[in-house]
Amino acid sequence: MSQVLVVGSVALDSVETPKGTHENLLGGSATHFSFSACNFTDVRLVGVVGKDFPVEHVEALQKKGVDTGGLVHKEGLTFRWTGKYRGTMDSAETLSLALNVFGDFQPEIPKNFRATPYVLLGNASPEIQQATLDQLENPSFVMMDTIDFWIKTKRVALENLLGRVHALCVNYEEARKLARKHNMASAIQVLLDKGPRVIIIKRAEHGATLATRDMLFHVPAFPTDKVVDPTGAGDSFAGGVIGYLSKHGTDEDSLRQSLVYGSVMGSFCVEEFGTNRLQEIGGKEIDSRVESLKKMMVL
Amino acid sequence: MSQVLVVGSVALDSVETPKGTHENLLGGSATHFSFSACNFTDVRLVGVVGKDFPVEHVEALQKKGVDTGGLVHKEGLTFRWTGKYRGTMDSAETLSLALNVFGDFQPEIPKNFRATPYVLLGNASPEIQQATLDQLENPSFVMMDTIDFWIKTKRVALENLLGRVHALCVNYEEARKLARKHNMASAIQVLLDKGPRVIIIKRAEHGATLATRDMLFHVPAFPTDKVVDPTGAGDSFAGGVIGYLSKHGTDEDSLRQSLVYGSVMGSFCVEEFGTNRLQEIGGKEIDSRVESLKKMMVL
Repeated sequence: MSQVLVVGSVALDSVETPKGTHENLLGGSATHFSFSACNFTDVRLVGVVGKDFPVEHVEALQKKGVDTGGLVHKEGLTFRWTGKYRGTMDSAETLSLALNVFGDFQPEIPKNFRATPYVLLGNASPEIQQATLDQLENPSFVMMDTIDFWIKTKRVALENLLGRVHALCVNYEEARKLARKHNMASAIQVLLDKGPRVIIIKRAEHGATLATRDMLFHVPAFPTDKVVDPTGAGDSFAGGVIGYLSKHGTDEDSLRQSLVYGSVMGSFCVEEFGTNRLQEIGGKEIDSRVESLKKMMVL
Repeated sequence: MSQVLVVGSVALDSVETPKGTHENLLGGSATHFSFSACNFTDVRLVGVVGKDFPVEHVEALQKKGVDTGGLVHKEGLTFRWTGKYRGTMDSAETLSLALNVFGDFQPEIPKNFRATPYVLLGNASPEIQQATLDQLENPSFVMMDTIDFWIKTKRVALENLLGRVHALCVNYEEARKLARKHNMASAIQVLLDKGPRVIIIKRAEHGATLATRDMLFHVPAFPTDKVVDPTGAGDSFAGGVIGYLSKHGTDEDSLRQSLVYGSVMGSFCVEEFGTNRLQEIGGKEIDSRVESLKKMMVL
Protein backbone atom coordinates (compact mmCIF):
# COMPACT_ATOMS: atom_id res chain seq x y z
CA MET A 1 0.00 0.00 0.00
CA SER A 2 1.38 3.36 -1.07
CA GLN A 3 0.42 6.78 0.20
CA VAL A 4 -1.59 9.31 -1.75
CA LEU A 5 -1.05 13.06 -1.90
CA VAL A 6 -3.70 15.56 -2.90
CA VAL A 7 -3.17 19.24 -3.59
CA GLY A 8 -6.29 21.27 -4.17
CA SER A 9 -8.93 23.49 -2.68
CA VAL A 10 -10.28 23.32 0.86
CA ALA A 11 -13.43 25.38 1.05
CA LEU A 12 -16.52 26.41 2.94
CA ASP A 13 -19.48 25.76 0.66
CA SER A 14 -23.04 27.02 0.89
CA VAL A 15 -25.28 24.85 -1.23
CA GLU A 16 -28.94 24.97 -2.17
CA THR A 17 -30.55 21.98 -3.88
CA PRO A 18 -34.18 20.82 -4.19
CA LYS A 19 -33.43 18.74 -1.08
CA GLY A 20 -32.48 21.65 1.17
CA THR A 21 -30.01 24.43 1.92
CA HIS A 22 -26.85 24.17 3.98
CA GLU A 23 -24.27 26.83 4.78
CA ASN A 24 -20.58 26.62 5.60
CA LEU A 25 -20.23 22.99 4.62
CA LEU A 26 -16.76 21.53 4.54
CA GLY A 27 -15.98 21.46 0.80
CA GLY A 28 -13.27 21.74 -1.82
CA SER A 29 -11.59 19.32 -4.20
CA ALA A 30 -8.87 18.20 -1.77
CA THR A 31 -11.44 17.61 0.97
CA HIS A 32 -13.83 15.43 -1.01
CA PHE A 33 -10.90 13.55 -2.49
CA SER A 34 -9.42 12.92 0.96
CA PHE A 35 -12.62 11.64 2.57
CA SER A 36 -12.96 9.24 -0.36
CA ALA A 37 -9.36 8.02 -0.75
CA CYS A 38 -8.88 7.55 3.00
CA ASN A 39 -11.01 4.41 2.72
CA PHE A 40 -8.19 2.80 0.77
CA THR A 41 -4.90 4.27 1.89
CA ASP A 42 -3.07 6.97 3.88
CA VAL A 43 -3.84 10.40 2.49
CA ARG A 44 -1.70 13.51 2.71
CA LEU A 45 -3.42 16.82 2.08
CA VAL A 46 -1.90 20.10 0.93
CA GLY A 47 -4.10 23.18 0.84
CA VAL A 48 -4.79 26.52 2.47
CA VAL A 49 -7.51 27.85 4.74
CA GLY A 50 -8.15 31.10 6.57
CA LYS A 51 -8.49 31.91 10.22
CA ASP A 52 -12.25 31.36 9.94
CA PHE A 53 -11.83 27.65 9.19
CA PRO A 54 -13.43 25.64 12.02
CA VAL A 55 -11.03 23.38 13.90
CA GLU A 56 -13.68 20.62 13.86
CA HIS A 57 -13.20 20.29 10.11
CA VAL A 58 -9.48 19.67 10.54
CA GLU A 59 -10.25 17.17 13.28
CA ALA A 60 -12.77 15.38 11.04
CA LEU A 61 -10.08 14.89 8.40
CA GLN A 62 -7.54 13.74 10.98
CA LYS A 63 -10.06 11.33 12.51
CA LYS A 64 -10.16 9.60 9.12
CA GLY A 65 -6.38 9.31 9.12
CA VAL A 66 -5.78 12.19 6.70
CA ASP A 67 -2.40 13.80 7.31
CA THR A 68 -3.17 17.53 7.40
CA GLY A 69 0.49 18.47 7.82
CA GLY A 70 0.28 20.32 4.49
CA LEU A 71 -2.83 22.35 5.36
CA VAL A 72 -1.63 25.93 5.80
CA HIS A 73 -3.60 28.37 7.97
CA LYS A 74 -3.24 31.91 6.65
CA GLU A 75 -4.42 35.34 7.69
CA GLY A 76 -7.69 36.01 5.89
CA LEU A 77 -10.76 34.04 4.95
CA THR A 78 -11.16 30.53 3.59
CA PHE A 79 -12.16 29.95 -0.05
CA ARG A 80 -15.96 30.21 -0.17
CA TRP A 81 -18.34 28.95 -2.81
CA THR A 82 -22.09 29.42 -2.87
CA GLY A 83 -23.99 27.37 -5.41
CA LYS A 84 -27.45 26.26 -6.38
CA TYR A 85 -28.72 23.16 -8.15
CA ARG A 86 -32.19 23.24 -9.67
CA GLY A 87 -34.61 20.50 -10.72
CA THR A 88 -32.64 17.58 -12.04
CA MET A 89 -29.42 18.82 -10.37
CA ASP A 90 -27.54 18.24 -13.61
CA SER A 91 -25.40 21.35 -13.20
CA ALA A 92 -24.47 23.87 -10.53
CA GLU A 93 -25.08 27.57 -10.76
CA THR A 94 -22.40 29.57 -8.95
CA LEU A 95 -24.08 32.30 -6.92
CA SER A 96 -20.87 33.64 -5.41
CA LEU A 97 -17.24 32.70 -5.31
CA ALA A 98 -14.56 34.22 -3.10
CA LEU A 99 -11.11 32.69 -3.58
CA ASN A 100 -9.82 34.51 -0.48
CA VAL A 101 -6.59 32.85 0.78
CA PHE A 102 -6.76 30.31 -2.10
CA GLY A 103 -6.36 33.21 -4.55
CA ASP A 104 -2.60 33.56 -4.12
CA PHE A 105 -1.96 30.03 -2.89
CA GLN A 106 1.62 28.94 -3.47
CA PRO A 107 1.69 25.26 -2.62
CA GLU A 108 4.59 24.20 -0.47
CA ILE A 109 4.81 20.47 -0.30
CA PRO A 110 6.16 19.39 3.11
CA LYS A 111 9.48 17.54 2.78
CA ASN A 112 8.04 14.29 4.08
CA PHE A 113 5.22 14.46 1.44
CA ARG A 114 7.43 14.98 -1.62
CA ALA A 115 8.16 11.34 -2.38
CA THR A 116 4.48 10.29 -2.19
CA PRO A 117 3.99 7.82 -5.06
CA TYR A 118 0.32 8.56 -5.97
CA VAL A 119 -0.80 12.14 -6.48
CA LEU A 120 -3.94 14.03 -7.43
CA LEU A 121 -3.49 17.53 -8.74
CA GLY A 122 -7.01 18.62 -7.83
CA ASN A 123 -8.77 21.40 -9.64
CA ALA A 124 -6.69 24.57 -9.21
CA SER A 125 -4.84 26.94 -11.56
CA PRO A 126 -2.25 25.30 -13.84
CA GLU A 127 0.36 27.39 -11.99
CA ILE A 128 -0.53 25.74 -8.69
CA GLN A 129 -0.54 22.33 -10.36
CA GLN A 130 2.84 22.97 -11.97
CA ALA A 131 4.38 24.30 -8.76
CA THR A 132 3.25 21.10 -7.07
CA LEU A 133 4.69 18.88 -9.80
CA ASP A 134 8.01 20.72 -9.57
CA GLN A 135 8.35 19.75 -5.91
CA LEU A 136 7.48 16.06 -6.29
CA GLU A 137 10.23 13.44 -6.15
CA ASN A 138 9.75 10.84 -8.86
CA PRO A 139 6.03 10.08 -8.31
CA SER A 140 4.67 6.80 -9.73
CA PHE A 141 1.30 8.14 -10.83
CA VAL A 142 0.14 11.73 -11.05
CA MET A 143 -3.44 12.44 -12.12
CA MET A 144 -4.71 15.94 -12.84
CA ASP A 145 -8.18 17.40 -12.94
CA THR A 146 -9.16 20.74 -14.41
CA ILE A 147 -12.24 22.78 -15.29
CA ASP A 148 -13.68 24.91 -18.09
CA PHE A 149 -12.33 28.12 -16.62
CA TRP A 150 -8.68 27.04 -16.94
CA ILE A 151 -9.25 25.55 -20.39
CA LYS A 152 -10.54 28.94 -21.54
CA THR A 153 -7.95 31.09 -19.80
CA LYS A 154 -4.77 29.00 -19.47
CA ARG A 155 -4.73 26.54 -22.36
CA VAL A 156 -0.97 26.67 -23.04
CA ALA A 157 -0.05 26.08 -19.39
CA LEU A 158 -2.57 23.22 -19.22
CA GLU A 159 -1.20 21.57 -22.35
CA ASN A 160 2.33 21.77 -20.98
CA LEU A 161 1.14 20.05 -17.83
CA LEU A 162 -0.49 17.27 -19.85
CA GLY A 163 2.96 16.28 -21.06
CA ARG A 164 4.09 15.80 -17.46
CA VAL A 165 1.29 13.77 -15.83
CA HIS A 166 0.31 10.12 -16.08
CA ALA A 167 -3.42 10.66 -16.13
CA LEU A 168 -6.05 13.27 -16.90
CA CYS A 169 -9.45 13.03 -15.22
CA VAL A 170 -12.08 15.46 -16.53
CA ASN A 171 -15.79 15.82 -17.26
CA TYR A 172 -17.25 14.94 -20.64
CA GLU A 173 -17.73 18.56 -21.75
CA GLU A 174 -14.29 19.56 -20.47
CA ALA A 175 -12.68 16.75 -22.47
CA ARG A 176 -14.42 17.98 -25.61
CA LYS A 177 -13.26 21.55 -24.98
CA LEU A 178 -9.70 20.65 -24.03
CA ALA A 179 -9.34 18.46 -27.13
CA ARG A 180 -11.28 20.88 -29.34
CA LYS A 181 -13.27 17.91 -30.66
CA HIS A 182 -17.01 17.38 -30.44
CA ASN A 183 -16.61 13.65 -31.01
CA MET A 184 -15.51 11.78 -27.89
CA ALA A 185 -13.57 9.01 -29.63
CA SER A 186 -11.57 11.69 -31.45
CA ALA A 187 -11.20 13.79 -28.30
CA ILE A 188 -9.70 10.87 -26.42
CA GLN A 189 -7.11 10.34 -29.17
CA VAL A 190 -6.18 14.02 -29.12
CA LEU A 191 -5.80 13.98 -25.34
CA LEU A 192 -3.67 10.82 -25.38
CA ASP A 193 -1.44 12.50 -27.98
CA LYS A 194 -0.83 15.33 -25.53
CA GLY A 195 0.98 13.00 -23.17
CA PRO A 196 -1.00 11.24 -20.44
CA ARG A 197 -1.01 7.46 -20.49
CA VAL A 198 -4.53 7.40 -19.05
CA ILE A 199 -7.54 9.56 -19.91
CA ILE A 200 -10.60 9.32 -17.67
CA ILE A 201 -13.85 10.91 -18.82
CA LYS A 202 -16.39 11.50 -16.05
CA ARG A 203 -19.97 11.31 -17.36
CA ALA A 204 -21.82 12.09 -14.07
CA GLU A 205 -24.99 9.95 -13.85
CA HIS A 206 -23.97 8.14 -17.04
CA GLY A 207 -20.78 6.64 -15.60
CA ALA A 208 -17.18 7.08 -16.71
CA THR A 209 -14.82 5.96 -19.45
CA LEU A 210 -11.12 5.14 -19.15
CA ALA A 211 -8.83 5.10 -22.17
CA THR A 212 -5.22 4.21 -22.81
CA ARG A 213 -3.60 3.60 -26.21
CA ASP A 214 -4.48 -0.09 -25.89
CA MET A 215 -7.69 -0.14 -23.92
CA LEU A 216 -11.11 1.40 -23.59
CA PHE A 217 -13.25 0.68 -20.54
CA HIS A 218 -16.60 1.99 -19.38
CA VAL A 219 -18.23 1.85 -15.97
CA PRO A 220 -21.87 2.76 -15.19
CA ALA A 221 -22.76 5.19 -12.43
CA PHE A 222 -23.93 3.40 -9.31
CA PRO A 223 -27.70 4.07 -9.46
CA THR A 224 -28.38 5.53 -6.03
CA ASP A 225 -31.98 6.64 -5.54
CA LYS A 226 -30.89 9.36 -3.11
CA VAL A 227 -29.29 12.37 -4.73
CA VAL A 228 -29.16 15.27 -2.32
CA ASP A 229 -26.12 17.34 -3.33
CA PRO A 230 -23.87 16.52 -6.31
CA THR A 231 -21.02 18.79 -5.12
CA GLY A 232 -17.72 16.93 -4.91
CA ALA A 233 -18.84 13.79 -6.74
CA GLY A 234 -16.00 14.09 -9.26
CA ASP A 235 -13.37 14.51 -6.55
CA SER A 236 -14.82 11.56 -4.61
CA PHE A 237 -14.66 9.57 -7.84
CA ALA A 238 -10.98 10.50 -8.21
CA GLY A 239 -10.39 9.49 -4.58
CA GLY A 240 -11.79 6.02 -5.27
CA VAL A 241 -9.70 5.66 -8.43
CA ILE A 242 -6.37 6.73 -6.93
CA GLY A 243 -7.14 5.07 -3.61
CA TYR A 244 -7.60 1.74 -5.37
CA LEU A 245 -4.56 2.21 -7.63
CA SER A 246 -2.31 3.03 -4.68
CA LYS A 247 -3.00 -0.46 -3.32
CA HIS A 248 -2.92 -2.41 -6.57
CA GLY A 249 -0.66 -0.59 -9.04
CA THR A 250 -1.60 0.82 -12.42
CA ASP A 251 -1.62 -2.12 -14.81
CA GLU A 252 -4.64 -2.51 -17.11
CA ASP A 253 -6.59 -4.74 -14.75
CA SER A 254 -6.10 -2.37 -11.84
CA LEU A 255 -7.08 0.63 -13.96
CA ARG A 256 -10.36 -1.08 -14.86
CA GLN A 257 -11.11 -2.05 -11.29
CA SER A 258 -10.23 1.41 -10.02
CA LEU A 259 -12.96 2.93 -12.16
CA VAL A 260 -15.58 0.80 -10.40
CA TYR A 261 -14.38 2.07 -7.04
CA GLY A 262 -14.42 5.62 -8.35
CA SER A 263 -18.01 5.27 -9.50
CA VAL A 264 -19.08 3.85 -6.14
CA MET A 265 -17.35 6.62 -4.16
CA GLY A 266 -19.05 9.26 -6.32
CA SER A 267 -22.41 7.67 -5.57
CA PHE A 268 -21.89 7.93 -1.81
CA CYS A 269 -20.83 11.57 -2.04
CA VAL A 270 -24.12 12.78 -3.53
CA GLU A 271 -26.31 11.16 -0.87
CA GLU A 272 -25.86 13.92 1.72
CA PHE A 273 -24.78 17.55 1.74
CA GLY A 274 -21.06 18.28 1.62
CA THR A 275 -18.88 15.42 2.83
CA ASN A 276 -21.43 14.15 5.37
CA ARG A 277 -22.14 10.84 3.66
CA LEU A 278 -18.51 10.21 2.77
CA GLN A 279 -17.53 10.67 6.39
CA GLU A 280 -19.82 7.93 7.62
CA ILE A 281 -19.23 5.10 5.15
CA GLY A 282 -16.89 2.17 5.57
CA GLY A 283 -15.39 -0.78 3.76
CA LYS A 284 -18.46 -3.03 3.93
CA GLU A 285 -20.77 -0.52 2.28
CA ILE A 286 -18.16 0.17 -0.39
CA ASP A 287 -17.66 -3.52 -1.14
CA SER A 288 -21.39 -4.11 -1.34
CA ARG A 289 -21.86 -1.36 -3.97
CA VAL A 290 -18.81 -2.53 -5.88
CA GLU A 291 -20.41 -5.97 -6.15
CA SER A 292 -23.73 -4.50 -7.30
CA LEU A 293 -22.04 -2.32 -9.88
CA LYS A 294 -20.02 -5.23 -11.25
CA LYS A 295 -23.25 -7.16 -11.75
CA MET A 296 -24.48 -4.33 -13.97
CA MET A 297 -21.60 -5.10 -16.35
CA VAL A 298 -21.62 -8.89 -16.52
CA LEU A 299 -22.57 -10.35 -19.87
CA MET B 1 -35.60 -17.56 -35.28
CA SER B 2 -38.87 -15.64 -34.98
CA GLN B 3 -40.12 -12.80 -37.12
CA VAL B 4 -40.29 -9.19 -36.03
CA LEU B 5 -43.05 -6.69 -36.74
CA VAL B 6 -42.60 -2.93 -36.62
CA VAL B 7 -45.36 -0.35 -36.81
CA GLY B 8 -44.24 3.25 -37.01
CA SER B 9 -43.43 6.17 -39.23
CA VAL B 10 -41.98 6.02 -42.72
CA ALA B 11 -40.76 9.46 -43.68
CA LEU B 12 -38.83 11.66 -46.03
CA ASP B 13 -36.30 13.59 -43.93
CA SER B 14 -34.28 16.67 -44.77
CA VAL B 15 -31.38 16.95 -42.38
CA GLU B 16 -28.67 19.54 -41.82
CA THR B 17 -25.72 18.72 -39.57
CA PRO B 18 -22.20 20.18 -39.30
CA LYS B 19 -21.22 17.40 -41.73
CA GLY B 20 -23.57 18.43 -44.53
CA THR B 21 -27.15 18.81 -45.73
CA HIS B 22 -29.28 16.15 -47.38
CA GLU B 23 -32.86 16.34 -48.58
CA ASN B 24 -35.54 13.69 -49.02
CA LEU B 25 -33.65 11.01 -47.14
CA LEU B 26 -35.47 7.79 -46.39
CA GLY B 27 -36.37 8.17 -42.70
CA GLY B 28 -38.89 7.35 -40.00
CA SER B 29 -38.90 5.08 -36.96
CA ALA B 30 -40.12 1.96 -38.80
CA THR B 31 -37.53 2.45 -41.52
CA HIS B 32 -34.47 2.78 -39.29
CA PHE B 33 -35.72 -0.08 -37.15
CA SER B 34 -36.18 -2.32 -40.20
CA PHE B 35 -32.76 -1.67 -41.71
CA SER B 36 -31.26 -2.54 -38.33
CA ALA B 37 -33.35 -5.58 -37.35
CA CYS B 38 -33.11 -7.15 -40.81
CA ASN B 39 -29.53 -8.10 -39.97
CA PHE B 40 -30.89 -10.59 -37.45
CA THR B 41 -34.28 -11.79 -38.60
CA ASP B 42 -37.20 -11.40 -41.01
CA VAL B 43 -38.84 -8.02 -40.58
CA ARG B 44 -42.43 -7.08 -41.36
CA LEU B 45 -43.19 -3.38 -41.71
CA VAL B 46 -46.50 -1.59 -41.26
CA GLY B 47 -46.70 2.08 -42.13
CA VAL B 48 -48.09 4.62 -44.57
CA VAL B 49 -46.59 6.74 -47.34
CA GLY B 50 -47.95 9.11 -49.96
CA LYS B 51 -47.88 9.02 -53.72
CA ASP B 52 -44.61 11.00 -53.64
CA PHE B 53 -42.71 8.16 -51.98
CA PRO B 54 -39.97 6.97 -54.35
CA VAL B 55 -40.30 3.33 -55.39
CA GLU B 56 -36.51 2.94 -54.91
CA HIS B 57 -37.00 3.31 -51.15
CA VAL B 58 -39.49 0.44 -51.11
CA GLU B 59 -37.10 -1.61 -53.21
CA ALA B 60 -34.23 -0.84 -50.82
CA LEU B 61 -36.25 -2.24 -47.93
CA GLN B 62 -37.29 -5.30 -49.92
CA LYS B 63 -33.71 -5.90 -51.04
CA LYS B 64 -32.85 -6.31 -47.35
CA GLY B 65 -35.62 -8.86 -46.94
CA VAL B 66 -38.07 -6.49 -45.25
CA ASP B 67 -41.66 -7.53 -45.95
CA THR B 68 -43.36 -4.29 -47.01
CA GLY B 69 -46.76 -5.97 -47.32
CA GLY B 70 -48.03 -3.64 -44.59
CA LEU B 71 -46.79 -0.41 -46.19
CA VAL B 72 -49.91 1.41 -47.38
CA HIS B 73 -49.67 3.90 -50.26
CA LYS B 74 -52.26 6.65 -49.81
CA GLU B 75 -53.39 9.68 -51.78
CA GLY B 76 -51.41 12.66 -50.47
CA LEU B 77 -47.86 13.32 -49.35
CA THR B 78 -45.50 11.27 -47.20
CA PHE B 79 -44.67 12.35 -43.63
CA ARG B 80 -41.88 14.91 -43.92
CA TRP B 81 -39.47 16.12 -41.26
CA THR B 82 -36.82 18.80 -41.65
CA GLY B 83 -34.31 19.06 -38.84
CA LYS B 84 -31.00 20.62 -37.93
CA TYR B 85 -28.25 19.51 -35.57
CA ARG B 86 -25.71 22.10 -34.43
CA GLY B 87 -22.21 21.81 -32.98
CA THR B 88 -22.05 18.74 -30.80
CA MET B 89 -25.21 17.25 -32.44
CA ASP B 90 -26.60 16.46 -28.99
CA SER B 91 -30.15 17.37 -29.98
CA ALA B 92 -32.20 18.02 -33.09
CA GLU B 93 -34.04 21.22 -33.82
CA THR B 94 -37.22 20.61 -35.82
CA LEU B 95 -37.41 23.19 -38.62
CA SER B 96 -40.61 21.84 -40.12
CA LEU B 97 -42.86 18.85 -39.68
CA ALA B 98 -45.71 17.78 -41.94
CA LEU B 99 -47.50 14.62 -40.82
CA ASN B 100 -49.38 14.41 -44.15
CA VAL B 101 -50.74 10.88 -44.67
CA PHE B 102 -49.29 9.77 -41.29
CA GLY B 103 -51.61 12.29 -39.57
CA ASP B 104 -54.71 10.11 -39.76
CA PHE B 105 -52.92 6.79 -40.03
CA GLN B 106 -55.09 3.89 -38.88
CA PRO B 107 -52.80 0.89 -38.79
CA GLU B 108 -54.23 -2.23 -40.37
CA ILE B 109 -52.06 -5.19 -39.59
CA PRO B 110 -52.16 -7.66 -42.50
CA LYS B 111 -53.62 -10.99 -41.46
CA ASN B 112 -50.38 -12.85 -42.04
CA PHE B 113 -48.52 -10.35 -39.79
CA ARG B 114 -50.84 -10.59 -36.76
CA ALA B 115 -49.20 -13.55 -35.07
CA THR B 116 -45.67 -12.10 -35.32
CA PRO B 117 -44.02 -12.95 -31.99
CA TYR B 118 -41.68 -9.91 -31.60
CA VAL B 119 -43.07 -6.42 -32.07
CA LEU B 120 -41.86 -2.84 -31.89
CA LEU B 121 -44.51 -0.17 -31.45
CA GLY B 122 -42.34 2.59 -32.88
CA ASN B 123 -42.86 6.21 -31.97
CA ALA B 124 -46.42 7.18 -32.98
CA SER B 125 -49.52 8.39 -31.13
CA PRO B 126 -50.71 6.11 -28.31
CA GLU B 127 -53.88 5.60 -30.38
CA ILE B 128 -51.88 4.11 -33.25
CA GLN B 129 -49.92 1.99 -30.80
CA GLN B 130 -53.08 0.76 -29.11
CA ALA B 131 -54.84 0.01 -32.40
CA THR B 132 -51.83 -2.08 -33.34
CA LEU B 133 -51.81 -3.96 -30.04
CA ASP B 134 -55.54 -4.71 -30.44
CA GLN B 135 -54.87 -6.53 -33.69
CA LEU B 136 -51.94 -8.68 -32.50
CA GLU B 137 -52.45 -12.35 -31.76
CA ASN B 138 -50.69 -13.35 -28.57
CA PRO B 139 -47.29 -11.74 -29.22
CA SER B 140 -44.31 -13.00 -27.17
CA PHE B 141 -42.61 -9.64 -26.73
CA VAL B 142 -43.94 -6.18 -27.48
CA MET B 143 -41.68 -3.18 -26.92
CA MET B 144 -42.91 0.39 -27.20
CA ASP B 145 -41.13 3.66 -27.76
CA THR B 146 -42.56 7.12 -27.25
CA ILE B 147 -41.48 10.77 -27.16
CA ASP B 148 -41.92 13.93 -25.09
CA PHE B 149 -44.83 15.13 -27.17
CA TRP B 150 -47.06 12.15 -26.29
CA ILE B 151 -45.99 12.23 -22.64
CA LYS B 152 -47.17 15.84 -22.48
CA THR B 153 -50.37 15.42 -24.46
CA LYS B 154 -51.53 11.80 -24.00
CA ARG B 155 -50.29 10.66 -20.61
CA VAL B 156 -53.35 8.60 -19.65
CA ALA B 157 -53.40 6.70 -22.94
CA LEU B 158 -49.66 6.07 -22.64
CA GLU B 159 -49.97 4.76 -19.09
CA ASN B 160 -52.72 2.39 -20.15
CA LEU B 161 -50.46 1.08 -22.87
CA LEU B 162 -47.63 0.50 -20.39
CA GLY B 163 -49.82 -2.08 -18.67
CA ARG B 164 -50.11 -4.01 -21.94
CA VAL B 165 -46.52 -4.20 -23.26
CA HIS B 166 -43.52 -6.27 -22.22
CA ALA B 167 -40.94 -3.54 -22.62
CA LEU B 168 -40.58 0.22 -22.74
CA CYS B 169 -37.63 1.74 -24.59
CA VAL B 170 -37.19 5.50 -24.14
CA ASN B 171 -34.58 8.24 -23.86
CA TYR B 172 -33.18 9.31 -20.50
CA GLU B 173 -35.15 12.57 -20.36
CA GLU B 174 -38.35 10.89 -21.53
CA ALA B 175 -38.03 8.28 -18.78
CA ARG B 176 -37.72 11.05 -16.19
CA LYS B 177 -40.78 12.84 -17.58
CA LEU B 178 -42.91 9.75 -17.97
CA ALA B 179 -42.12 8.64 -14.40
CA ARG B 180 -42.26 12.18 -13.02
CA LYS B 181 -38.99 11.51 -11.20
CA HIS B 182 -35.72 13.38 -11.60
CA ASN B 183 -33.79 10.48 -10.11
CA MET B 184 -33.22 7.65 -12.59
CA ALA B 185 -33.17 4.81 -10.05
CA SER B 186 -36.54 6.02 -8.77
CA ALA B 187 -37.87 6.59 -12.29
CA ILE B 188 -37.06 3.02 -13.26
CA GLN B 189 -39.00 1.69 -10.26
CA VAL B 190 -42.00 3.85 -11.13
CA LEU B 191 -41.94 2.67 -14.73
CA LEU B 192 -41.64 -1.01 -13.74
CA ASP B 193 -44.65 -0.49 -11.46
CA LYS B 194 -46.67 0.64 -14.47
CA GLY B 195 -46.43 -2.80 -16.01
CA PRO B 196 -43.56 -3.54 -18.38
CA ARG B 197 -41.22 -6.36 -17.41
CA VAL B 198 -38.31 -4.59 -19.09
CA ILE B 199 -37.38 -0.90 -19.06
CA ILE B 200 -34.65 0.26 -21.42
CA ILE B 201 -33.20 3.75 -20.99
CA LYS B 202 -31.34 5.08 -24.02
CA ARG B 203 -28.54 7.49 -23.02
CA ALA B 204 -27.31 8.41 -26.53
CA GLU B 205 -23.48 8.72 -26.52
CA HIS B 206 -23.43 7.51 -22.91
CA GLY B 207 -24.87 4.06 -23.66
CA ALA B 208 -28.04 2.44 -22.37
CA THR B 209 -29.43 0.81 -19.24
CA LEU B 210 -31.78 -2.16 -19.01
CA ALA B 211 -33.81 -2.87 -15.88
CA THR B 212 -36.14 -5.62 -14.74
CA ARG B 213 -37.31 -6.24 -11.16
CA ASP B 214 -34.30 -8.54 -10.66
CA MET B 215 -31.60 -7.08 -12.82
CA LEU B 216 -29.87 -3.88 -13.82
CA PHE B 217 -27.49 -3.85 -16.77
CA HIS B 218 -25.58 -1.08 -18.50
CA VAL B 219 -23.93 -1.00 -21.89
CA PRO B 220 -21.59 1.74 -23.17
CA ALA B 221 -22.15 3.43 -26.51
CA PHE B 222 -19.86 2.06 -29.20
CA PRO B 223 -17.35 4.94 -29.55
CA THR B 224 -17.42 5.63 -33.28
CA ASP B 225 -15.25 8.55 -34.33
CA LYS B 226 -17.57 9.32 -37.25
CA VAL B 227 -20.83 10.98 -36.28
CA VAL B 228 -22.52 12.47 -39.31
CA ASP B 229 -26.27 12.37 -38.58
CA PRO B 230 -27.78 11.11 -35.29
CA THR B 231 -31.29 10.74 -36.75
CA GLY B 232 -32.70 7.26 -36.21
CA ALA B 233 -30.03 6.05 -33.78
CA GLY B 234 -32.66 5.14 -31.18
CA ASP B 235 -34.74 3.16 -33.67
CA SER B 236 -31.62 1.39 -34.95
CA PHE B 237 -30.79 0.58 -31.33
CA ALA B 238 -34.27 -0.92 -30.88
CA GLY B 239 -33.77 -2.92 -34.09
CA GLY B 240 -30.61 -4.47 -32.70
CA VAL B 241 -32.29 -5.27 -29.38
CA ILE B 242 -35.43 -6.90 -30.80
CA GLY B 243 -33.50 -8.47 -33.67
CA TYR B 244 -31.24 -10.24 -31.20
CA LEU B 245 -34.09 -11.23 -28.87
CA SER B 246 -36.10 -12.72 -31.73
CA LYS B 247 -33.29 -15.22 -32.25
CA HIS B 248 -32.42 -15.95 -28.63
CA GLY B 249 -35.53 -15.38 -26.49
CA THR B 250 -35.95 -12.92 -23.65
CA ASP B 251 -34.33 -14.53 -20.62
CA GLU B 252 -31.92 -12.39 -18.57
CA ASP B 253 -28.82 -13.42 -20.48
CA SER B 254 -30.42 -12.66 -23.82
CA LEU B 255 -31.70 -9.29 -22.60
CA ARG B 256 -28.16 -8.32 -21.58
CA GLN B 257 -26.66 -9.47 -24.87
CA SER B 258 -29.38 -7.72 -26.86
CA LEU B 259 -28.37 -4.37 -25.39
CA VAL B 260 -24.86 -4.78 -26.80
CA TYR B 261 -26.30 -5.39 -30.26
CA GLY B 262 -28.57 -2.38 -29.85
CA SER B 263 -25.65 -0.16 -28.96
CA VAL B 264 -23.65 -1.39 -31.96
CA MET B 265 -26.54 -0.85 -34.40
CA GLY B 266 -27.03 2.69 -33.09
CA SER B 267 -23.36 3.40 -33.73
CA PHE B 268 -23.62 2.37 -37.38
CA CYS B 269 -26.71 4.48 -37.95
CA VAL B 270 -25.01 7.78 -37.09
CA GLU B 271 -22.08 7.29 -39.45
CA GLU B 272 -23.90 8.45 -42.59
CA PHE B 273 -27.00 10.47 -43.41
CA GLY B 274 -30.36 8.74 -43.14
CA THR B 275 -30.19 4.96 -43.44
CA ASN B 276 -27.20 4.97 -45.81
CA ARG B 277 -24.74 3.36 -43.40
CA LEU B 278 -27.27 0.85 -42.07
CA GLN B 279 -28.00 -0.28 -45.61
CA GLU B 280 -24.40 -1.23 -46.33
CA ILE B 281 -23.34 -3.09 -43.20
CA GLY B 282 -23.30 -6.83 -42.67
CA GLY B 283 -22.79 -9.52 -40.07
CA LYS B 284 -19.00 -9.33 -39.95
CA GLU B 285 -18.90 -5.64 -39.17
CA ILE B 286 -21.59 -6.08 -36.54
CA ASP B 287 -19.76 -8.97 -34.87
CA SER B 288 -16.50 -7.04 -34.84
CA ARG B 289 -18.07 -4.06 -33.02
CA VAL B 290 -19.88 -6.37 -30.63
CA GLU B 291 -16.52 -7.88 -29.66
CA SER B 292 -14.96 -4.43 -29.20
CA LEU B 293 -17.85 -3.25 -27.08
CA LYS B 294 -17.73 -6.33 -24.90
CA LYS B 295 -14.05 -5.65 -24.23
CA MET B 296 -15.06 -2.25 -22.86
CA MET B 297 -17.02 -4.01 -20.12
CA VAL B 298 -14.67 -6.78 -19.05
CA LEU B 299 -13.33 -6.48 -15.55
